[in-house]
Amino acid sequence: MGIDYTRFFSSISLELRASDVRELLKLTEGKKIISFAGGLPDPRIFPKNELAEIARQVVEERGEQALQYSPTPGVGEFREELGRFLNSKGVKVGDEDALVVTTGSQEALYLAALALVEPGDTVFMEEPGYLAAINLFKALKADLVPVPVDDDGMDTDALEEKVKAAKREGRRLKLVYVNPTSNNPNGTTMPDDRRKHLLEIASKYDLLIIEDDPYSYFTFDDSIKFTHIKTLDGEGRVLYLGTFSKILVPGLRLGWVAGPEPVVAKIELVKQVVDLHSSTLSQYIALEAIRRGIVDRVISMAKSLYRRKRDLMLEALEIHMKGVASWTKPVGGFFIFLKVKGVDMRRLLFKAVERGVAYVPGDAFYITPGRGRNTARLSYSFVREDEIEEGIKMLSETIKEERPH
Amino acid sequence: MGIDYTRFFSSISLELRASDVRELLKLTEGKKIISFAGGLPDPRIFPKNELAEIARQVVEERGEQALQYSPTPGVGEFREELGRFLNSKGVKVGDEDALVVTTGSQEALYLAALALVEPGDTVFMEEPGYLAAINLFKALKADLVPVPVDDDGMDTDALEEKVKAAKREGRRLKLVYVNPTSNNPNGTTMPDDRRKHLLEIASKYDLLIIEDDPYSYFTFDDSIKFTHIKTLDGEGRVLYLGTFSKILVPGLRLGWVAGPEPVVAKIELVKQVVDLHSSTLSQYIALEAIRRGIVDRVISMAKSLYRRKRDLMLEALEIHMKGVASWTKPVGGFFIFLKVKGVDMRRLLFKAVERGVAYVPGDAFYITPGRGRNTARLSYSFVREDEIEEGIKMLSETIKEERPH
Repeated sequence: MGIDYTRFFSSISLELRASDVRELLKLTEGKKIISFAGGLPDPRIFPKNELAEIARQVVEERGEQALQYSPTPGVGEFREELGRFLNSKGVKVGDEDALVVTTGSQEALYLAALALVEPGDTVFMEEPGYLAAINLFKALKADLVPVPVDDDGMDTDALEEKVKAAKREGRRLKLVYVNPTSNNPNGTTMPDDRRKHLLEIASKYDLLIIEDDPYSYFTFDDSIKFTHIKTLDGEGRVLYLGTFSKILVPGLRLGWVAGPEPVVAKIELVKQVVDLHSSTLSQYIALEAIRRGIVDRVISMAKSLYRRKRDLMLEALEIHMKGVASWTKPVGGFFIFLKVKGVDMRRLLFKAVERGVAYVPGDAFYITPGRGRNTARLSYSFVREDEIEEGIKMLSETIKEERPH
Repeated sequence: MGIDYTRFFSSISLELRASDVRELLKLTEGKKIISFAGGLPDPRIFPKNELAEIARQVVEERGEQALQYSPTPGVGEFREELGRFLNSKGVKVGDEDALVVTTGSQEALYLAALALVEPGDTVFMEEPGYLAAINLFKALKADLVPVPVDDDGMDTDALEEKVKAAKREGRRLKLVYVNPTSNNPNGTTMPDDRRKHLLEIASKYDLLIIEDDPYSYFTFDDSIKFTHIKTLDGEGRVLYLGTFSKILVPGLRLGWVAGPEPVVAKIELVKQVVDLHSSTLSQYIALEAIRRGIVDRVISMAKSLYRRKRDLMLEALEIHMKGVASWTKPVGGFFIFLKVKGVDMRRLLFKAVERGVAYVPGDAFYITPGRGRNTARLSYSFVREDEIEEGIKMLSETIKEERPH
């Protein structure tokens, strides 16, 4: 047609570019490839029959409500049930809190960020850290400050130094984004003393905290104790984000944000202009799934299935990657983070895919441009058990071919 | 807790305020009141049994896909079916177009606006016009220019004058938002010559057009002929927004945007950070509902049901409002727009609700502050047939009490 649309695009849409990795991975769809790339749940834990029956029943018996528009913050009955569910899992959602149901936890993050972050506002987060959070905060032109991580997650001493420095420089301190339990991509869980330290820092320097928590419901080792930051918070500084994607099914596209009422009220207003409300039908289905104990059953299946898969991947790494790479030992979640000496894992992806194995290049999880080129995120959640070793072997061979001798 | 959260809020969230009307109408929930306020579909047209069966089947037979994450632009099979559906309804979606499935058409509008509109960009739209579009463009700090309407919808001669003036003043002309068929709140449909004129203006002054079209699928009078602006567009200037909320059910929360590929590609990138994708399950259900002809059946039921309700409301207005008010005769959609001489309909709402009848004060549909205080939007879509006359009578009495004698 000949129109050059560039002049029509807003600055946020000029900021966003199609990810080359995503495009490359799209090419693998439907091909015979062992993919450690996406963070998809294993569909074997989807409670298909139960959800089929619930869906039928909800539409037939409560269709007038379940098929209708619903309130922006979510279906009342569902929000109450979800609040009880969270409290039963040790997430304190109290009288001074409010809760908004969202279109996946991606939307919870988006709404919270949009309600809070102004271009130039300083946001602290883990490096490496959650890819989608990095992209979002960058799109909103936040002043994004990377905080180093170790085996115990975010290094809060380093955080305090970074906060101090930012304050000295007169930057507008706004919030800390943290994924403290079964971190994506690091697989780490912050001990409670760090969580308390984080809250102290937030209090001292007047920051809010976004606790992004998709994975805490099925940590693999019950001896690992932690308390949700939301629960430790005595001042009303924490927004707690969660999702049904990992504890039920992703296809309902339901997440939530819970936190201090005045902040969540703003999030509700933002949601009203963004999508008015999330799928009513999904909410009625999730409501029944909690009530009938199906969510709890999925959680317990998830725990043993993903633990088994993690163990298989760790074993395969021991066999094929020793001396080639180092890697994290995740205490929960879907991911292992790999460090390879002297190999550009972004460049290597094309060759790996040609050989038949895919992953996400780790530099996507770094805020600082150029960092993490020698890293990769491997997901064990979706891949078949009997393909894990084969995939790791192929990846190891691809790396070995590429390594400087 | 004592935290003053105000300093944490972004400028967009400070811009958004809870609507007092919405708060007042919330109070009426569950009360015995005749409400002409919301634009809800009548649940009697919800195909409950069919959707219950589809939902069960889709989850049971295709659960691995229907309960899983899905691509950002939508489930491939569903997008193809939707494209065919649109073409069958006279909406030209061609090879140079792309289509993204959204979380209701509110999200379609939000994503399009976010991808295109920078603060200060000039956006033209009908006055009175669609409330949610006004709120959104204001929140994005667009330079929103009201275009007058008459019985044939947007007055394109007036539009051209406004565009010329804005160009002379050096403003950044960006787009025209228009709801051309069965307009909300005016009930008008633009004739094709105006639609062509609109496209000429867009071409001449290099503007894009957002054609927001929730109601065209069931206009009441088949003798009223119109062509979708998207279909008349030869240059790739039109983004076409639609929704399943009125032609199937709102509870699936599905809408779409179709338009020139380069623009829709940007919308897809924005959607990726906003909510990643819309409910997969909803998409599989809607897919089957189109395939099995259920959407077409709902459309034909909608047409006769809402026509009957419109007629009942017009009759009641003739009986009770003559000499008190003037009103539109909608050719489709859910709404009648009322003008009352010398009565502030926003102030009157409280009294009306006390008496037992609710509506939306019409000034909410005006861009210019202070305009439209003597107007109201009356919805006939949800209210029971046997309550329409009673409600109009109560409203008429409330107005008469208030009128200057």
